[in-house]
Amino acid sequence: MKIKIFVTGGTFDKEYDEIKGILFFKKTHLSEMLKLGHCKLKFDVTTLMMKDSLHMTDEDRNLILENCEKIDEDKIVITHGTDTMAETAKVLGRSIKDKTVVLTGAMIPYKFGSSDGLFNLGSSLAFVQVLPPGVYVSMNGRYFNWDNVRKNKETGKFEELNEISSQP
Amino acid sequence: MKIKIFVTGGTFDKEYDEIKGILFFKKTHLSEMLKLGHCKLKFDVTTLMMKDSLHMTDEDRNLILENCEKIDEDKIVITHGTDTMAETAKVLGRSIKDKTVVLTGAMIPYKFGSSDGLFNLGSSLAFVQVLPPGVYVSMNGRYFNWDNVRKNKETGKFEELNEISSQP
Amino acid sequence: MKIKIFVTGGTFDKEYDEIKGILFFKKTHLSEMLKLGHCKLKFDVTTLMMKDSLHMTDEDRNLILENCEKIDEDKIVITHGTDTMAETAKVLGRSIKDKTVVLTGAMIPYKFGSSDGLFNLGSSLAFVQVLPPGVYVSMNGRYFNWDNVRKNKETGKFEELNEISSQP
Amino acid sequence: MKIKIFVTGGTFDKEYDEIKGILFFKKTHLSEMLKLGHCKLKFDVTTLMMKDSLHMTDEDRNLILENCEKIDEDKIVITHGTDTMAETAKVLGRSIKDKTVVLTGAMIPYKFGSSDGLFNLGSSLAFVQVLPPGVYVSMNGRYFNWDNVRKNKETGKFEELNEISSQP
Repeated sequence: MKIKIFVTGGTFDKEYDEIKGILFFKKTHLSEMLKLGHCKLKFDVTTLMMKDSLHMTDEDRNLILENCEKIDEDKIVITHGTDTMAETAKVLGRSIKDKTVVLTGAMIPYKFGSSDGLFNLGSSLAFVQVLPPGVYVSMNGRYFNWDNVRKNKETGKFEELNEISSQP
Repeated sequence: MKIKIFVTGGTFDKEYDEIKGILFFKKTHLSEMLKLGHCKLKFDVTTLMMKDSLHMTDEDRNLILENCEKIDEDKIVITHGTDTMAETAKVLGRSIKDKTVVLTGAMIPYKFGSSDGLFNLGSSLAFVQVLPPGVYVSMNGRYFNWDNVRKNKETGKFEELNEISSQP
Repeated sequence: MKIKIFVTGGTFDKEYDEIKGILFFKKTHLSEMLKLGHCKLKFDVTTLMMKDSLHMTDEDRNLILENCEKIDEDKIVITHGTDTMAETAKVLGRSIKDKTVVLTGAMIPYKFGSSDGLFNLGSSLAFVQVLPPGVYVSMNGRYFNWDNVRKNKETGKFEELNEISSQP
Repeated sequence: MKIKIFVTGGTFDKEYDEIKGILFFKKTHLSEMLKLGHCKLKFDVTTLMMKDSLHMTDEDRNLILENCEKIDEDKIVITHGTDTMAETAKVLGRSIKDKTVVLTGAMIPYKFGSSDGLFNLGSSLAFVQVLPPGVYVSMNGRYFNWDNVRKNKETGKFEELNEISSQP
């Protein structure tokens, strides 16, 4: 069993440009993170794009969908910005029925030391191995079905559509 | 659904004593790690002991077993030293049939910055939610049944009993 | 001998707002950094402002000058954004002749884990103890007189006015 | 002006062996730390030995002394274990009169993330540039003359011989 990991950008992979004083994308830290986690799963990482998910277009989402469909692997983890992760999950969920796809991301860049990224990567790689075919979002230690998830913009936490928000 | 987390010590929670220059246990970092992971699962942490797993006795293992059995929760994560994790898994696995129990640990202390602990914690909390009742070890991004796992002392990696070791 | 530390903001103290995805100021990390450095000097920290130095005005610089002049201590370290640190040094250097004042900062926020801030703080506290009265900038392990320093915008390094830039 | 840096080991450079669960020396992290500090001084790093200072012998101290004497540079920083740093300072201080030598170290290994090492390195590189010829210890943000310094074994802090210890 090999797991395919698609990188699309998001806070996960943002870095700090010390000359300009801004956040930017250079390259993905997925391999570094998997090494840090002592991960011994068979996996394969491909970068599809490096985008803030606020800038993701319909074309971008179709590209992700096409790539999920055309590969042989039926277990796929996608790293993605959190702001429109639920939206991309919907595009994938409507079409993909015979593979397990887990989208995950981070609220704080991995390079900033105190990131939730490594925790989320561990969770999503576990979920993708065990959950039945379908499209899921994995954040905050939980998993959500593609058609029942949103990011709460105020708390930054993911929740089910009918969930009553508790404290941030 | 609430997840019970039992802390038993292990490299996970070791710290550096700067006066004596040795590693020691002070208190668990589980709550700090779950906060770092932005974890929003319902969970409850109880420290059963703080031991290097090389010093764990039969009595210690029975204490862990009793605690797993007597609580109401049927999803349990146990943090444990890696050296005898497989041994404790056997003690639990022979007796516990109706709960999902996942043992996990770390090769590098969480406080040392470059630990695999956060990754393993993410994995084990995901596995415990989705795997059927039984006792498992979760390390290196993988999960193992209690009766088919060992730590490879040379590579430091966990593997199935009949697994041919690959590179460290 | 007590050292006065004035905080004025700068990259040093910037943090990441995980909800908005931007850098911002909350509070200074000076005390935390001095504790991390096991600093046993007698010191006293006062926050004068929390500003990106690109937004610093003549009034801000006068406020810093007044505060340096009115206090009893004659050894002063000022944390400051790097972009206009040389400019503030000039304002202070023209007026202050009987105290040792060292301005320092960081290229990467302290909270991002891989910051030069702790190194610079160590340097500037050493320089302020030993250098004769005058106003100095302490960056990149070096010290510069207030009337002979600039930040090289391309390399991000500080240099003397007549210095030939080497590699970044 | 070029600064010579001699590495002799100490907590500074200790690492964690994840297979054996012990602290050990691999190679020095000095260059990595100087890069992190954005240091632009002219310097040159030579490893003389990699020893816990509790294991340092008279021969080791003589080797350090000889190396300080035979090089051209008259500004020297020595990284050293803290337990016998004051002892080595005495050996050097009795003989070296025309160079500025600063010994420094760390209470917590650099690789553990929350080390005082970077702060101490910044301090010692500043002191070595400005202090008059002589041998000094630089720890806790302070500098001490070679003949008036000891490590307080209880607090882990350095102090003058007649200093009344305050809180740890």
